Amino acid sequence: MNLKSPREQEYIQQLSIDCVIFGYEDEQLKVLIPKLDFTGDFWALPAGFIQQEEDIDEAARRILAERTGLADIYLEQFRVFGTAKRSNKTFMERLVALNPTKLDDWGLDLNTLGWLTRRFVSIGYYALVDIHKVNLQKGNIDASIQWYPIRELPSLIMDHEEMIHIALDTLRLNLDQKLIAYNLLPETFTIKEVQELYEAIYERPFARNNFQKKILDQQVLERLEKKFTGAANKAPYVYRWKRY
Amino acid sequence: MNLKSPREQEYIQQLSIDCVIFGYEDEQLKVLIPKLDFTGDFWALPAGFIQQEEDIDEAARRILAERTGLADIYLEQFRVFGTAKRSNKTFMERLVALNPTKLDDWGLDLNTLGWLTRRFVSIGYYALVDIHKVNLQKGNIDASIQWYPIRELPSLIMDHEEMIHIALDTLRLNLDQKLIAYNLLPETFTIKEVQELYEAIYERPFARNNFQKKILDQQVLERLEKKFTGAANKAPYVYRWKRY
Repeated sequence: MNLKSPREQEYIQQLSIDCVIFGYEDEQLKVLIPKLDFTGDFWALPAGFIQQEEDIDEAARRILAERTGLADIYLEQFRVFGTAKRSNKTFMERLVALNPTKLDDWGLDLNTLGWLTRRFVSIGYYALVDIHKVNLQKGNIDASIQWYPIRELPSLIMDHEEMIHIALDTLRLNLDQKLIAYNLLPETFTIKEVQELYEAIYERPFARNNFQKKILDQQVLERLEKKFTGAANKAPYVYRWKRY
Repeated sequence: MNLKSPREQEYIQQLSIDCVIFGYEDEQLKVLIPKLDFTGDFWALPAGFIQQEEDIDEAARRILAERTGLADIYLEQFRVFGTAKRSNKTFMERLVALNPTKLDDWGLDLNTLGWLTRRFVSIGYYALVDIHKVNLQKGNIDASIQWYPIRELPSLIMDHEEMIHIALDTLRLNLDQKLIAYNLLPETFTIKEVQELYEAIYERPFARNNFQKKILDQQVLERLEKKFTGAANKAPYVYRWKRY
């Protein structure tokens, strides 16, 4: 949410985008979460609005690029959140009460920001990124931005925790059908690393032989030639995803 | 779309709902499509807007109930359609040009309806109904309303044909995972009828023995006792979906 440039007329009213950005590191599935630069410990998903001249997918890419530095990200809508009572109002009132001078300092007040406290329908997107390619960038109202393991999330504003859980459910449903897991991995990897990724996402172990057979049967992996090192070569095969 | 009561301030602006209503009849998957009461052959998906005090799912249920008479329908979001150029403008200009007096008769003009010609983001819902329970009802701007087999659709306005195709793709992906097919069937049915339904949805044959095994293995069907008729009983078993 870009509180510092709230030019109401630029945006579609009462419609926002929230992004659940997944990464994979240290055998853990993680989510990228900024902490807002206000007193009161406000963590919020990367979010934003849709400009009048902008496709919704473009808006999501812009919001993702702002925090990750990545222009080309795998992303997908996963749910629209639209109950009648869904609004920023409670959160923003608490924020203003705890930060009485902050908006003044920016030349803003709750009247100027009134459109932000109306009911909002929000389109949830999830994104999968290679965590090592991300160039973490604070948004202009962030105090910090950090990767959190899926089981160690901070307390988030509004319905943002629910959003993460529904995004994860959707990721699990889509993972085999859509062969999208490679977006979370580096260029090359071993089968063991793919298995560890799946185990992190589904939070359960897979039997090694079955898993290897299942993945290889999908014929989506390309096995790379082992480099001749002169030594006895017991290193596992390295793969990459086939390009289509 | 309810052109006859366009009370702009009641609704979230630039956000609509379009519904793809699937039914099953004569071994064919069908879609419910109204034809608008204007010169020019305009077919459009059942659609509407979201009232300020209404959940988006409630709005979808209201739109579905208007045309089907059914209050309790299986429905699911499947995609948000939100390219920057997406608008009713071209369609409405053509409609007005071909029906110069119609809006006058209703005391309306394109200025009053200006908010309808802006860019619209639309949330696509698909619904599954037991076609025999539907009480077809024309909306207040419909000339007629009819079930069309999925391969014999009329020419639809805007991106509504694309919406149907994406709804169908989603239905195919979800069918096994979510065990939702029963929403398209009457209370009781034979395994052969379930197979015919799947064949209509996927537009391909299934091998009978495999299909029967696959469906029964899911343990979602309850077999009813055959009624004793005195005659030699060669009728197939009749099933219904287990209630949870």
